[in-house]
Amino acid sequence: MSGFKIQLRDRVARINEELGKVFQQNLDTPEVIIEAMKYSLFAGGKRLRPMLMMETCQALEGDVEVIKPLAMGIEMIHTYSLIHDDLPAMDNDDLRRGKPTNHKVYGDAMAILAGDGLLNYAVEIMLQGTQGLTGRALTNYLCAMKCIMGASGILGMIGGQVADILSEDKVIGLDEMDYIHLHKTAALLEACVQSGCIIAEAEPATQGRLISYSHRIGLAFQIVDDILDIEGNEADLGKPIGSDEKNHKSTFVSLYGLEASKIRVDELEAEAIELLRPIGERTVFLQELASYICHRRK
Amino acid sequence: MSGFKIQLRDRVARINEELGKVFQQNLDTPEVIIEAMKYSLFAGGKRLRPMLMMETCQALEGDVEVIKPLAMGIEMIHTYSLIHDDLPAMDNDDLRRGKPTNHKVYGDAMAILAGDGLLNYAVEIMLQGTQGLTGRALTNYLCAMKCIMGASGILGMIGGQVADILSEDKVIGLDEMDYIHLHKTAALLEACVQSGCIIAEAEPATQGRLISYSHRIGLAFQIVDDILDIEGNEADLGKPIGSDEKNHKSTFVSLYGLEASKIRVDELEAEAIELLRPIGERTVFLQELASYICHRRK
Repeated sequence: MSGFKIQLRDRVARINEELGKVFQQNLDTPEVIIEAMKYSLFAGGKRLRPMLMMETCQALEGDVEVIKPLAMGIEMIHTYSLIHDDLPAMDNDDLRRGKPTNHKVYGDAMAILAGDGLLNYAVEIMLQGTQGLTGRALTNYLCAMKCIMGASGILGMIGGQVADILSEDKVIGLDEMDYIHLHKTAALLEACVQSGCIIAEAEPATQGRLISYSHRIGLAFQIVDDILDIEGNEADLGKPIGSDEKNHKSTFVSLYGLEASKIRVDELEAEAIELLRPIGERTVFLQELASYICHRRK
Repeated sequence: MSGFKIQLRDRVARINEELGKVFQQNLDTPEVIIEAMKYSLFAGGKRLRPMLMMETCQALEGDVEVIKPLAMGIEMIHTYSLIHDDLPAMDNDDLRRGKPTNHKVYGDAMAILAGDGLLNYAVEIMLQGTQGLTGRALTNYLCAMKCIMGASGILGMIGGQVADILSEDKVIGLDEMDYIHLHKTAALLEACVQSGCIIAEAEPATQGRLISYSHRIGLAFQIVDDILDIEGNEADLGKPIGSDEKNHKSTFVSLYGLEASKIRVDELEAEAIELLRPIGERTVFLQELASYICHRRK
């Protein structure tokens, strides 16, 4: 196993451990809702978002302890959005990461509530993180929290999801596709690096580089998703391939073809790495993370 | 029109105006999601929650300007919960306040997203309210926000909704019914008066009285709901009556009968008023609000 793979595994383990702690509080509520929330939260996610947030903070010598509750919050927000996206009324998906989707196990009503519960609980956990902070540290923290909530709301992720639904069974142009990707996926990734920058009080130039980096990896992530939906291995992916074609979904690949898409991913990888290099040695993990995203098979 | 009715109308108008302002920000997102959110938010709600919050704060001579964003937030949270509750996967209701429910107008997918959007936007608006606050004022504000988010989450409103769904088509006891009411309705009302107390830095004794008051009116509100579902006027209510019986729902009335239920409402009204009287003149509106809740016909 490469050095990066070991680091990656350690970081995922650390995030999983922190997420576990979030549910060790005394939660006096019907057992099934906790179960449903945990089912999706611990279904083997890549933890890309909290990892990006914590790594950015660490690379810029910010206090990782401070940012932790925000990192846990964003993973819960990401998870709730997956639960709701998978519902029969939305994308109607039965499998995610090789397991039955939330509503397949707990029913539609409980899946809706598990999603609501995760979003609400994410905010509770993020608010708990203000405890003990004062002055500029508190102001920074609230600024990062606003940034996250903005990215997950109607001006960000939810807006992208709405546009995605409106685009179903329609041939859409590059502008509309960009809007969907930028909002549905990139907004949250951008909020991750931005939060890291805010907590670490990064210089504007550094922040600019990291935000551009997040756009590159966000777009690359999406294109790789589209490529894997054609060329991927169902066992690796944990879901059937060909769903974009089945759903008549316009993707980068359907617009530009496989070859051009792969070239674009290579370009994005190189650009992402180049953007971080001047910041220094501490960004090596984030650089390798870009390559990992571009070459992933699942 | 009585003095109280005029005051009530003015307060509702003021809250509606404030809620309108929330959507005057530059919202660059697909039009339909804003429309769907506003459709339910401006569907003629009683504005009980923001009114309770602002009135408590004012009665205790707290700064009502400070609490406004929290009051708007809790009304948005209440509204999102209604949209999700009405979904076919949940209560499957077609009418609310005399109008087709959100999903009947915008479809299930958009209704889910409108609910998600309102919850997320509520948090954004509440976070915006921290702007300009420092020191103890900021600490109090965050404490009130925690209280609201706790009341709306899995330990509060969502927990109650889960218990409610689990109880469907079952005969439940008083304990379980209490749990549902306390969490589904009373938790948010309690958070309203508690937030008012926190912002106004109320004495513990005063806070205790107001919280007990909120429990009384919360329970009364629920019992009146159950009574109106039997004796109400469909035109006034804006929805069909008899739904509890149709859904085999255990209610206070089904357990104790109409007569005992009405006596209980009268007791709760008297208790609520008695709890506030010692606090003084400034709580008169809140006292009259208790009577209004107990005698409402819709």
